[in-house]
Amino acid sequence: MVLGLLLLASAPRSAAQRPRREPTPNDALVSPEVLADHRVTFRLYAPKASEVTVAGDFGPPAKMTKDDKGVWSVTVGPLTPDFYSYHFSVDGVKTVDPKNSVIKPGISSVDSMVFVPGKEADFEDLKEVPHGEVRQVWYHSATLNTQRRMHVYTPPGYEDNSERYPVFYLLHGSGDEDSGWSTIGRAGFILDNLIAQKKAKPMLVVMPNGSLPRPRNLPRRAPGAPPPSDFAKRMAEFQGLFVKELLQDIIPQVEKRFRVRTGAANRALAGLSMGGGQTLAVVTRHPDQFGYVGVWSAAIFGDPQEFEKRNATFFESADKVNQTVKLFSISVGDQDFLLAGSKNLDELLKKHSIQHKFHISGGGHTWINWRRYLNDFAPQLFQ
Amino acid sequence: MVLGLLLLASAPRSAAQRPRREPTPNDALVSPEVLADHRVTFRLYAPKASEVTVAGDFGPPAKMTKDDKGVWSVTVGPLTPDFYSYHFSVDGVKTVDPKNSVIKPGISSVDSMVFVPGKEADFEDLKEVPHGEVRQVWYHSATLNTQRRMHVYTPPGYEDNSERYPVFYLLHGSGDEDSGWSTIGRAGFILDNLIAQKKAKPMLVVMPNGSLPRPRNLPRRAPGAPPPSDFAKRMAEFQGLFVKELLQDIIPQVEKRFRVRTGAANRALAGLSMGGGQTLAVVTRHPDQFGYVGVWSAAIFGDPQEFEKRNATFFESADKVNQTVKLFSISVGDQDFLLAGSKNLDELLKKHSIQHKFHISGGGHTWINWRRYLNDFAPQLFQ
Repeated sequence: MVLGLLLLASAPRSAAQRPRREPTPNDALVSPEVLADHRVTFRLYAPKASEVTVAGDFGPPAKMTKDDKGVWSVTVGPLTPDFYSYHFSVDGVKTVDPKNSVIKPGISSVDSMVFVPGKEADFEDLKEVPHGEVRQVWYHSATLNTQRRMHVYTPPGYEDNSERYPVFYLLHGSGDEDSGWSTIGRAGFILDNLIAQKKAKPMLVVMPNGSLPRPRNLPRRAPGAPPPSDFAKRMAEFQGLFVKELLQDIIPQVEKRFRVRTGAANRALAGLSMGGGQTLAVVTRHPDQFGYVGVWSAAIFGDPQEFEKRNATFFESADKVNQTVKLFSISVGDQDFLLAGSKNLDELLKKHSIQHKFHISGGGHTWINWRRYLNDFAPQLFQ
Repeated sequence: MVLGLLLLASAPRSAAQRPRREPTPNDALVSPEVLADHRVTFRLYAPKASEVTVAGDFGPPAKMTKDDKGVWSVTVGPLTPDFYSYHFSVDGVKTVDPKNSVIKPGISSVDSMVFVPGKEADFEDLKEVPHGEVRQVWYHSATLNTQRRMHVYTPPGYEDNSERYPVFYLLHGSGDEDSGWSTIGRAGFILDNLIAQKKAKPMLVVMPNGSLPRPRNLPRRAPGAPPPSDFAKRMAEFQGLFVKELLQDIIPQVEKRFRVRTGAANRALAGLSMGGGQTLAVVTRHPDQFGYVGVWSAAIFGDPQEFEKRNATFFESADKVNQTVKLFSISVGDQDFLLAGSKNLDELLKKHSIQHKFHISGGGHTWINWRRYLNDFAPQLFQ
């Protein structure tokens, strides 16, 4: 028999050094397992653990039970077809699913992801349609005096013509970085599907890194600790840093490096949670820069009158704002802890006759909502 | 005091639902901590665990010890400045470092990564030089009848001119996918630095997904189980599938979508481990396609005479091979379990007067070597 080259597909890294070991129940373990009825079974081999749970954005944390081989498992659902993030807690230690390589990276944590396919998730699934590219682009930020990365989606066909495209700046939330909208956010696939169905115009989607080095005067609080008395002032200064980074570094870089159209009519801005706060900070300070604005799962904190006073110039120029901002869209889930603050924002905009849409969806402060908000928002841009 | 919008930077996802909890030693825990002397301290809060170790490509697995607060720790090194991958084992359960968001994704596992900065790692570090883009590119593979992704590095300035570039096809090993060379492989940064120093020509680097759906007749073996008697034949067929995918799908896609030069003189191919085996499979079957070939940490398995017989056509056309392949480079570490098989390949090529370079480095079957092989190989291309 002829011996060829092996692919090494099954050779462990240090096979030469390591002795062969006995098989364990872990070897053939499958986790997660998506069942035909949309329930999902999670499994973890942890024979010595005394308590294992799985938590994620699919619902309340679930206790797992151990079999006689040391395998913990639980079945949840049925779940609505979608992408879900989850992690295990093994005697209090947070861990990703060691049997699942599909992960959601972030700046403060890593989670596992599971996809439950089905009609409801078609909008965000990898379909047989033309695909845009998602590029990692580095630039020097003068504002932050460092090198920064952004993810940029270019639509299908971008390389094949000399057309100029409008640009949608799309911001992530706290704990994520510029890759978030391309991993758990599924932005590229959502845009591919919308563009293929001619529901959305071909556009660039720029996903910057909105997580900034936290200034010394704004330390992270210990859980339960009260904020310092001038916390909001310090936070507003901190937000100003991102406003500057976006307007003076990111947009100029994009308009220099890519074939894009310029001016407010060709620029959209939206963000979730922290990114929704950043979006509001940008539009209240520079209402002439973006023709389309989305504020998702973000809110006014504290007293709305204080917010009104702080942004008096913005609220006093409703006519100008309405002329530039063709779409001002606010979305929040009815389970979101920022629901009340979002309602306050809606009320303030109403009071000052600033045209906007306010949409309360089901659900909470999760990517489940944010992907759907993107899917609803993108078709309304640049029409 | 004016209350502004909060960035939500410190608000947990479901702050509204969750009661405030007591602080734990985990809250302020730092892991990994890179010390000034290049030692690295790993820490994990696991008060109920009875054994915790950290393993990685920095050296032998290290036992961690628990303090009276339930924090396990160990300090390793000093380590040569470089990127290292590691994971914890908590009572036998593999976990990434929950305090470290820098991860190495793969198709069969996820690891944490730590960077020890220093002179020896400058070649792979993010430097203040012009950066190329790394793009995620989807295409339809007729060979595999599915949609596949590749990562494509375009050099700095690619968008600013109409020049055509040579292309380097760079393959990963088993357990990885097309992102591997851009995460732990640092390919973009290595190329950026080489190009900035004019050590390497500007080129595209195409990093395809080399992990194919394993055919039914080639099941994964249980640990310790012997291979089936016709394993090599089945494996060669399986390798043929990637050869077809590369030549009939990937290269045509790249030459259609990007401004590249065509023909063997403008194409390089290299790969590590499984990807080195794939590289050898391509060059022995199609020696007219690539002018530059790198086989890293890969080898002839079993009897070299059988390999010689299997590839008789290749070995009998040394003159033609030498005319096309300007560089045939074989690299392997002196601790690599594939050292003997690499030596056999060197001997066979010598015997048939196929010009090549054979380089035995220090170290084993790790990314530590593969990044350095790339840094040595790329400057020799397209000169």
